[in-house]
Amino acid sequence: ADVKKIAVIAGDGIGPEVVGEALKVMKKTEELFGYQFEFEHGLFGGIAIDEKGTPLPQETLDICKAADAVLLGAVGGPKWDNNSKELRPETGLLGIRKALGLFSNIRPANVFDCLMDASTLKPEVLEGTDLIVVRELTGGIYFGEKFRREGANGQEAVDTCVYNVQEVERIVRQAFEIAQTRRKKLASVDKANVLETSRLWREVVNRIAPEYPDVELEHVLVDNCAMQLLRRPASFDVIVTENMFGDILSDEAAMLTGSIGMLSSASMGEGSFGLYEPVHGSAPDIAGQGISNPIATILSVALMYRLTFGYHEAAQLIEDAVKSVLDAGHRTGDIAVDKSKAIGTTAMGDLIVAAM
Amino acid sequence: ADVKKIAVIAGDGIGPEVVGEALKVMKKTEELFGYQFEFEHGLFGGIAIDEKGTPLPQETLDICKAADAVLLGAVGGPKWDNNSKELRPETGLLGIRKALGLFSNIRPANVFDCLMDASTLKPEVLEGTDLIVVRELTGGIYFGEKFRREGANGQEAVDTCVYNVQEVERIVRQAFEIAQTRRKKLASVDKANVLETSRLWREVVNRIAPEYPDVELEHVLVDNCAMQLLRRPASFDVIVTENMFGDILSDEAAMLTGSIGMLSSASMGEGSFGLYEPVHGSAPDIAGQGISNPIATILSVALMYRLTFGYHEAAQLIEDAVKSVLDAGHRTGDIAVDKSKAIGTTAMGDLIVAAM
Ligand SMILES: CC(C)[C@H](C(=O)O)[C@@H](O)C(=O)O
Ligand SMILES: CC(C)[C@H](C(=O)O)[C@@H](O)C(=O)O
Repeated sequence: ADVKKIAVIAGDGIGPEVVGEALKVMKKTEELFGYQFEFEHGLFGGIAIDEKGTPLPQETLDICKAADAVLLGAVGGPKWDNNSKELRPETGLLGIRKALGLFSNIRPANVFDCLMDASTLKPEVLEGTDLIVVRELTGGIYFGEKFRREGANGQEAVDTCVYNVQEVERIVRQAFEIAQTRRKKLASVDKANVLETSRLWREVVNRIAPEYPDVELEHVLVDNCAMQLLRRPASFDVIVTENMFGDILSDEAAMLTGSIGMLSSASMGEGSFGLYEPVHGSAPDIAGQGISNPIATILSVALMYRLTFGYHEAAQLIEDAVKSVLDAGHRTGDIAVDKSKAIGTTAMGDLIVAAM
Repeated sequence: ADVKKIAVIAGDGIGPEVVGEALKVMKKTEELFGYQFEFEHGLFGGIAIDEKGTPLPQETLDICKAADAVLLGAVGGPKWDNNSKELRPETGLLGIRKALGLFSNIRPANVFDCLMDASTLKPEVLEGTDLIVVRELTGGIYFGEKFRREGANGQEAVDTCVYNVQEVERIVRQAFEIAQTRRKKLASVDKANVLETSRLWREVVNRIAPEYPDVELEHVLVDNCAMQLLRRPASFDVIVTENMFGDILSDEAAMLTGSIGMLSSASMGEGSFGLYEPVHGSAPDIAGQGISNPIATILSVALMYRLTFGYHEAAQLIEDAVKSVLDAGHRTGDIAVDKSKAIGTTAMGDLIVAAM
């Protein structure tokens, strides 16, 4: 049988709870579709700092490298926020991206009709919003040289933003290809009126664009994009941009949907390998209470099925099950209008499994 | 008599029209308050490229340097978008900031009650939004070394982001001081979990914060700030951040108010010298039709009166006049609900002058 290896990294805060529900969903698909998964659990983030003295232990990395896909909960929390750089959960996050070559972060931001009210945007503006931010994830100012030095006016700090042609080309091609499977519109976001890396970016985009004649391309400056996301979110289809801009814009896009507890993400390397995680954080304030929303993590499984395994039927089943449970009015606390009727993490997971 | 020298740079597109109305307002205050202004006009941006072969002619710079304040309309347009870097209007903008030492960009983003509906945010979320983004304007990745080089994987582009202690300290102090005159809350925005320049930034903020014990300080990561602006805009008072983040966040903040045609800005150097301009651009599509909204430029005059000249009474009079004209229901096309009742640029300017 075709056994798929899944590295499971529950992480911190609500991570273990939401991952637990996602695993129930995966097991249900084993039953229904005859899939076979082998799960290997690894420590990562704050819990790894506590137990192993490093946010990204070598054995966790080995488990990930041996796997076909990684399912991640969430990492971080106030407990580790004041640690030195090497002992911070986010250092592990940057490390795992680089070590696994996850150069592409795919962040769908779509609106769930029944959650439209949760957005701070007017429903008529939000209606139909369904976009994907494709963020370059292993280059740019995140990974360039960083240092301090003495300058003419005292100490100074330096960060370096570097992109080469090949790094831009692979992420932009991926974005074009994703656009081809959707509404065929691509917005490439840069700051070409100021940055050299952005000018290189735009040159590469313009050079390869003719190979995707069916995709309508626009170049948008990053400041303008931050505005247009607010003004006309539904008009975007796929947005592709570099690491730092993508960090900001993907969070803005996520928040404007009002559905941040529902959004999944994929970080992809070469080939079909991917790391899947909810967009929301570890929410330490509600961890351990059994009230967190597992839907984003469950939908991350659907994304894994589509992008890594090509299990489209099962992915659709999961997405439909989520929708039907929501349509039936079930809500966890974060998305409930009437908080007194909110259900817990496990109850939500059970309902989704039952709906499958 | 105390004659103040004003450099007037009308610029491109609707720049000349809106500046014309702002000058009428200034002349009205000469009459009412006995002020004396000497206006010197300079070419800048696209028109300077056309007439002088450079976006920032030396004589324009000299006029600005000899002045107490600069009033700028807007620059740029599609005509010059494909020019080489030295012949682009924005190169002039970056050049004038550096040449005049304008290290601080002050961008109020507040909501006009009567324009609340123009926002894509829900009124109940927007209500009470009144914030100022203080953006560092002559440092960071905008002005660091930029170049191309051959790397192991082909051509690469490099941008360098540099900040020294003194650059951070002067902008942060200014932000603390502005906060002291307002609701006494300061959000310092950085990406200290990734960038060395942000770690330096945060160190400086924390070091000087005790000197402003009356100001409540929070550190916000830039991605989180992009989200929180959408979720709780009214909770922000003053936001201080570096150049690139400020570019993105100040535009996001402006757009969410729905009042982009109404927002003014100041770019300040050492002392009281400042350059004042509307936030909106040159709007080439409607230039010359006499339908543009002069209010942002008129309010930039009020900002000039407050920040450069200490003419608080006149500033208040201008702001009150704008409010009363709006309250009486007068609207230019950009902010009119019923476009057929919209009035033109000159009519709006005249009404404001009359209301003074
Ligand atoms: C924690 C941080 C380093 C990380 C990033 O900036 O990439 C996070 O914000 C994200 O978007 O995954
Ligand atoms: C035109 C451009 C160089 C400029 C900037 O990025 O600073 C503009 O966006 C602004 O904010 O004034």
